[in-house]
Amino acid sequence: MTQVIKTIAEMRARVAAARVGGKIVGFVPTMGALHDGHISLIEAAVKRTDYVIVSIFVNPTQFGPGEDFHNYPRPFEKDLAICQKHDVDAIFAPSVNEMYPRETLAWVTVDNLTERLCGESRPGHFRGVATVCAKLFNIVHPDIAFFGQKDAQQAVIVWRMVADLSMPLKVVVCPTVREPDGLAMSSRNVYLSPEERKDAVRIYESLVRCQELIEAGERDTDVISGQMYEILKQMPGTKIDYVSICDAETLEELGQVQGRVLIAVAVRMKSVRLIDNILVDTPTQ
Amino acid sequence: MTQVIKTIAEMRARVAAARVGGKIVGFVPTMGALHDGHISLIEAAVKRTDYVIVSIFVNPTQFGPGEDFHNYPRPFEKDLAICQKHDVDAIFAPSVNEMYPRETLAWVTVDNLTERLCGESRPGHFRGVATVCAKLFNIVHPDIAFFGQKDAQQAVIVWRMVADLSMPLKVVVCPTVREPDGLAMSSRNVYLSPEERKDAVRIYESLVRCQELIEAGERDTDVISGQMYEILKQMPGTKIDYVSICDAETLEELGQVQGRVLIAVAVRMKSVRLIDNILVDTPTQ
Repeated sequence: MTQVIKTIAEMRARVAAARVGGKIVGFVPTMGALHDGHISLIEAAVKRTDYVIVSIFVNPTQFGPGEDFHNYPRPFEKDLAICQKHDVDAIFAPSVNEMYPRETLAWVTVDNLTERLCGESRPGHFRGVATVCAKLFNIVHPDIAFFGQKDAQQAVIVWRMVADLSMPLKVVVCPTVREPDGLAMSSRNVYLSPEERKDAVRIYESLVRCQELIEAGERDTDVISGQMYEILKQMPGTKIDYVSICDAETLEELGQVQGRVLIAVAVRMKSVRLIDNILVDTPTQ
Repeated sequence: MTQVIKTIAEMRARVAAARVGGKIVGFVPTMGALHDGHISLIEAAVKRTDYVIVSIFVNPTQFGPGEDFHNYPRPFEKDLAICQKHDVDAIFAPSVNEMYPRETLAWVTVDNLTERLCGESRPGHFRGVATVCAKLFNIVHPDIAFFGQKDAQQAVIVWRMVADLSMPLKVVVCPTVREPDGLAMSSRNVYLSPEERKDAVRIYESLVRCQELIEAGERDTDVISGQMYEILKQMPGTKIDYVSICDAETLEELGQVQGRVLIAVAVRMKSVRLIDNILVDTPTQ
C-alpha cells in the first residue's frame, strides 16, 4: 500500500519510524510523469532498500523563464498507480508552497559543472536542481538516492554535491532506459509530433555511431563529433544545442578520447528539448 | 569523559549510537580558542540536550587571502580541558584534509544576507561559513545547533540556510557574553595590545549609547549612527568598517528604527578586526 504524503512534517515522521524499525531508506526523486526509465530506478530501489520513497514534485526553481513549468505533464493518478504496482512505500508529493513557503535565499551551487553543457542554455537550471535535491535529501533522509544516467550532468552534479557537502547518503546512477528504436525515455517525449518522434531516433543513432568510431580506434573528438553532427543534421527543423565529448567526472571538453568519457547531445525540436548520452570507457594513456 | 573524534566516519557512528539510545543531540560549532562566550553555548547545549558535540575546526574556506587563517589561535589542550570540565560528550576535531579531501566545487550561498555588513569587507567569508556549517550539520546530524549572538550576521545566515534548505535541526542563538567592562568575548581579543584592549571598550559604549537613544525615543538612524561614530572615533588608529542599523532578519539598512532591529559595528585596530552588536525591539508602526 503506497502512502501519499503531502507535508514535510509527515514525511520526516514516516522516515523516522521506518529507521527506528531498522529499515534502509531508498529514494527516487522525480517530477512525476513516470515512464519506464523511472520504473527502472524504482525497481533498483526496491531491490536494494527496505523503504522506498518516490518524490513527485515539479520544481519551479529549476525552470527558466519561458520554459515549460506550467505545461509540464502532471498525471498524478497514473503515477500513483505505477508506484502502487511497483511496491513503493511512500510518495512524497508536496505543494510548491510546502517546499518554498517564502522567497528562497539559500542555494546550493556547484562550480564549473553547472555552467557547462545544458547549463549554457539553461542558466540557473542546475542551481535549482542541486538546491531542491539538497532540500529533498534533508527531508527524506535517504540512505541511497537513485538517479538516471539519461540526465548525466544532473547525476554528476548531485554526486559532487553529496561528496563536497558530506551529505550522509549514497548516490546510485542507473542505466538509461530506451524505446525499442533507441530513443531515451523522457517525460517530454509526449510533446513530440509523430514526425518529430520518428526523427528523434537520430539522437541515439549519433551516439551509437560515436561508440562505433571509438571502438574502431578513433580518438580525435573533432572527427567523432563531426560525424555525429552529420547524423543529427538529418532532423529537419531541429537546432543542435551541443554535442559534447567530455570527461565523465569534470565535464571538461576533451580533444582526445581518453579514460571515462561522456558523450552528450542536446537538441531542440520546435518546443521540445531532448538530451541523451552514453558513457564510454577507454584506456588512459 | 570527553571523546576526541578526528574522522567523519567515527563521528557519524558515535552520533548514530547516541540516537539509537534515544538521546537528543546538541551541537556547538567552533573554531576553538574557547572563551566564556563558547562556554555559555556549551552550557546551553548541556542543559537542553543529552549528547553534546563541540566541533573545533579552523575552517580555511571562510578566511580570505591575507586574513589570519595560519595565525588563528589553536590552543587544543586548553580547549579540551574546558570541554571536559563542562561535560561535553564529544569533540569533533577533523583535519583540513578530512573535511576537504579534494577541491570543493559545491557551495551554499545565501543571497543578499552574505553581501551586507561584514560580507562587504570579507568577500566569500559567509559562503565559507554557510558551506562548512552545512557540512558539519550533515556529519554531526544535530537536533539543535547553538550559535552566539555576537556573530549576528552568521546567526542570521545559518538560520536562513537551515530554513530554506529544510535542514532537520533547530538553530538556537544565545546572548553575547562580555568582559566586565563590556567588550564582547572573542577569540581574537588575545591579539589586542594593552592600549588597544583599553580603547576597545568604546565599541560597546557606542552600542549602549545607541540603545539609550532609542529608549529615549530617537528613531532617525542617521542621528543615532552619528552619535555612535563620535564615540568610535575616540579609538586612535582605528578604522571603522561599518556602523549598521538594520532589520534583524533581512539585514536591510533602515532609515527609521522600527520592529526588531540589529545595531552592528565592525572596526579594525591595526591587525585585529572586532565586531559587536545589540538587538533592540521597538514597536512596528
